Amino acid sequence: MSPKDASLQALVAPIADDLAAMREVLQTSLASDVPAVSDMLDHIGRFRGKQLRGALVMLNANARSGAKARLADQTELPVVAAIVELIHLATLVHDDVLDGADKRRRVASVNRRWDNQVAVLLGDLIYSRAFHLSTTLRSPLVSQLLSQITQEICAGEIEQAAGRYDFNMSQESYERIATAKTGALYGAACELGSRYPDGSEFDGAAMRAFGREIGLAFQIIDDLIDLEGDEAVAGKSTGTDVEDGKVTLAVLHVYREAEASVQAKIRDAYTLPGLAESPGGRLAQLLDVCDIEPGKAKARARAAELVDSARKRLTRLPEGPARKALYTLSEFVLERRW
Amino acid sequence: MSPKDASLQALVAPIADDLAAMREVLQTSLASDVPAVSDMLDHIGRFRGKQLRGALVMLNANARSGAKARLADQTELPVVAAIVELIHLATLVHDDVLDGADKRRRVASVNRRWDNQVAVLLGDLIYSRAFHLSTTLRSPLVSQLLSQITQEICAGEIEQAAGRYDFNMSQESYERIATAKTGALYGAACELGSRYPDGSEFDGAAMRAFGREIGLAFQIIDDLIDLEGDEAVAGKSTGTDVEDGKVTLAVLHVYREAEASVQAKIRDAYTLPGLAESPGGRLAQLLDVCDIEPGKAKARARAAELVDSARKRLTRLPEGPARKALYTLSEFVLERRW
Repeated sequence: MSPKDASLQALVAPIADDLAAMREVLQTSLASDVPAVSDMLDHIGRFRGKQLRGALVMLNANARSGAKARLADQTELPVVAAIVELIHLATLVHDDVLDGADKRRRVASVNRRWDNQVAVLLGDLIYSRAFHLSTTLRSPLVSQLLSQITQEICAGEIEQAAGRYDFNMSQESYERIATAKTGALYGAACELGSRYPDGSEFDGAAMRAFGREIGLAFQIIDDLIDLEGDEAVAGKSTGTDVEDGKVTLAVLHVYREAEASVQAKIRDAYTLPGLAESPGGRLAQLLDVCDIEPGKAKARARAAELVDSARKRLTRLPEGPARKALYTLSEFVLERRW
Repeated sequence: MSPKDASLQALVAPIADDLAAMREVLQTSLASDVPAVSDMLDHIGRFRGKQLRGALVMLNANARSGAKARLADQTELPVVAAIVELIHLATLVHDDVLDGADKRRRVASVNRRWDNQVAVLLGDLIYSRAFHLSTTLRSPLVSQLLSQITQEICAGEIEQAAGRYDFNMSQESYERIATAKTGALYGAACELGSRYPDGSEFDGAAMRAFGREIGLAFQIIDDLIDLEGDEAVAGKSTGTDVEDGKVTLAVLHVYREAEASVQAKIRDAYTLPGLAESPGGRLAQLLDVCDIEPGKAKARARAAELVDSARKRLTRLPEGPARKALYTLSEFVLERRW
């Protein structure tokens, strides 16, 4: 186990049983009578990730009363957490349609269409299953909230796609998009854990705000890591935002302050044909034509500000291991130990 | 107005007001605060098609009592019909991801990724909106039924993709897939019209069966039209099933009865490289190597049998213009006047 995984493990220790119950629901939900579908769902079930959104549901539910006893009556909570994870899984499957299409294009283009088709359908199936599972719950809260949030996620992603290469995007627009992409589902997970099935709407709104803030902070840090260009640290390819025309917060700051000649060079780094194939790609070019550091510092400061605001919201919760875990989790966002 | 459109218009005359109310809900549902999303939804709203599924909801609702008066209390029915249409619209948008990708590949491949991405997200947004709209209704019936049916549609489409080039597919498998693709949503439209919000489950099941049968018959006829190769009659490209490796009912029949040497030639027509570019494409080759007529006759007979069975179910409804319209509609399926 890596140090990252170990610290996450320690974090969710107070809710280990709840997470096990959630995983059982997930496993049942990823089954099918249709052999072709069953194979694909099995495959997807293996990429289960850190299940942070499910953990946020459970941590918030536990944090409500400060003790764990009350959860015994809440047999539906593992289902709620599983539904949140299913929604996330569906968004990942649909993200892969696009990323996968690109990667596979160089390898096995004959299969591209079939793969895309199945990925779209499989994502749709998982969404439907999540919604169907939510209709089996006693309260309509989960159905209502998650169908609302899914719209926000999609609209945010569409707005992002439409806003590519927009170097004059306002910080407000950037944050609205990043919140929709990442913060919205974090917020819903926290709100559902806090409220479901009939808790205080007021507390739910506070914890939703907590989730949206740490989600937005997470996305800002994620965008910074993409700009660092250190793939070993990132654990995935970097520079993808520059390649894809996504102008993220640090670049928006630098662009706004830059002289016209530097602005033109920044635009060229994103757009001139052939640069993607040069050593270090477009990212190296971008870092060459401007000083990105002030932008990164501003973005990091904004993320810290968001986490600080989120943490203050935790003081309304009774003290206990779950509240402590939520506090530590918000720390992780900035240090990016997950 | 074409004769086809005129006869459809006459058919839905008894529910013209209800359909107008449904369209109003649809228009509101296809709005967005996000300009990029709003543009795309506007665009989609223009392709509104014949809205047969929404009409099936309304015809069934009207047929329940034989009179129209009771609908006055059912202000939610136009919303139910709009939700069914939204689900259909989302499946169309996702179908276009795949078809569009192919077409655009030859024309504007630079935009392919962006277009695919947006089409996937837009379909997801419409699905979520449909589900969210269903959570605003007084009864959970629509949420439950449509999230169930959406799973069936997706699983059927995946099974179809996995079963391409399967010349030994059983008639049962073919019908299960075709029912999932087309019959399931027809059935749900009829069942919801018949039951919503608290009608008889027994009547609902009968009308669901009616919808599934005419939906399956419709799909069988649709597959036959693709085999005819007359694009003027079909109003769209034909031979696409042969190109895509979809072995439809008529071909399955012929293949099962054929000698091994003919079976090999049929497989070659679907699979040998280069045939797609020959005059008349793979379809011409298929029609050249076997006598398709007995297969088509069997498929047509099966469709007629299904419509006959569906019609018998209508006798349980009180007589009236809506029942008559449903009867005529089932006739249209075979004559394919819609």
